[in-house]
Amino acid sequence: MSIAIIFGANGGIGQEFVKQALERHAVVYACSRPSEQSDAKTLPHIKAMDNGLQLVDIDVLNEDHLKNLADKISNQYGHVDLIVNATGILHDPNGLQPEKKIEDFNLDNFNKVFQINTASTALIAKYFISLLKKSESMPAVFASLSARVGSIGDNQLGGWYSYRASKAALNQIVKTLSIEVARRNKNTAVIALHPGTTDTKLSKPFQQNVKPEKLFSAYYSVSKMFQIIDNLFLEDNGKFFAWDGSTIEW
Amino acid sequence: MSIAIIFGANGGIGQEFVKQALERHAVVYACSRPSEQSDAKTLPHIKAMDNGLQLVDIDVLNEDHLKNLADKISNQYGHVDLIVNATGILHDPNGLQPEKKIEDFNLDNFNKVFQINTASTALIAKYFISLLKKSESMPAVFASLSARVGSIGDNQLGGWYSYRASKAALNQIVKTLSIEVARRNKNTAVIALHPGTTDTKLSKPFQQNVKPEKLFSAYYSVSKMFQIIDNLFLEDNGKFFAWDGSTIEW
Repeated sequence: MSIAIIFGANGGIGQEFVKQALERHAVVYACSRPSEQSDAKTLPHIKAMDNGLQLVDIDVLNEDHLKNLADKISNQYGHVDLIVNATGILHDPNGLQPEKKIEDFNLDNFNKVFQINTASTALIAKYFISLLKKSESMPAVFASLSARVGSIGDNQLGGWYSYRASKAALNQIVKTLSIEVARRNKNTAVIALHPGTTDTKLSKPFQQNVKPEKLFSAYYSVSKMFQIIDNLFLEDNGKFFAWDGSTIEW
Repeated sequence: MSIAIIFGANGGIGQEFVKQALERHAVVYACSRPSEQSDAKTLPHIKAMDNGLQLVDIDVLNEDHLKNLADKISNQYGHVDLIVNATGILHDPNGLQPEKKIEDFNLDNFNKVFQINTASTALIAKYFISLLKKSESMPAVFASLSARVGSIGDNQLGGWYSYRASKAALNQIVKTLSIEVARRNKNTAVIALHPGTTDTKLSKPFQQNVKPEKLFSAYYSVSKMFQIIDNLFLEDNGKFFAWDGSTIEW
């Protein structure tokens, strides 16, 4: 039975990943951060729907939560075919904004951005990497949403210090993990994906200079990323792909 | 009058940077983290020595400390010629160790490593970047100690997740800052430096597989890095140099 887990399933891109994963996998765990009203003691909370969808309230930075979910999936299915980490933060209602200049840099915001954008992938990997295996010829896949602005070599504009650096760090986590899975499990590809500029809450305040044909719907962006995921070879382990299948320099 | 500031002046490489900076600059601020006995209210504490050396106890993650020191130097000299950030952490006596496998990843250690290895450069830049200017033809220089293992493209061995990712993130901060200084102040070069494997406390537990001719003294490593700093052109702004003057891929 084919199993997928989507983290950040409440975001614009994550929601669409859940929808399109349901067309491909028998069971899809849609993992979102709990509302503030949730009783922390009962987390992760899992609610099964009719169509194979499992709605999961979980804090992706809480190791107990991650271990609990991994144990449940391990006991029930013994493996996972696809993991997508679509958690990410660029701004929030509490005043977090990408820096326009170095004087805007703030250590609290830096910490928040790095935990959500970078550490989340390492923590998910810590508890789920041993479950990633697929019986067929295609590799199991662990895909993390990165961003072209995380590319150091491609950085022309500057600004957005914490976000850019958190995605560069994520890319290094992905690359390091790809080396470890190659050593431990020959049938898994760990990749970073750039979704393009997609019409979601994350990009909303920054869309004014994006040409209309370059601003994608979540449907289009995720369709293109699934084209990549559906056609991955083991040689692609450790690569950083844009939505169109091209690779991006580090 | 030529002014240099060395952060992380208590480390093996930082100490040597202070010594060799004194051969080049009239005043050298040697900035180290305060001992735990220090009275936090009196920080940063500055003690002037006869030879132009200024010993500074300062917490590089404390914005009040950084602002206070920047104001003092601004009032007294109005500019800085060279800043070196040699702060860095790979392991500590409290159980922080570079990860051998993803199961060793720990969020507290991740946070500590990123604050010291990555955020420190952004915070120093926030308070000192406007002081960096030099009247002569050579650019003022802001150099941060990075590491070849921070290169994503050069990562062959895996492991050391947090350290590798923190240095990749640092490289992105350096690159982003280089773009901002080029826009704000045409006479400054911001660079990342790989010192080589140097015989210091940081590398001590990991020297067993290093060939003797590849294990440098701090004197040799810093002499080579000063050769780079002494000969920088503005075109070098934003580059990642190894001790031997070669550039390292991102």
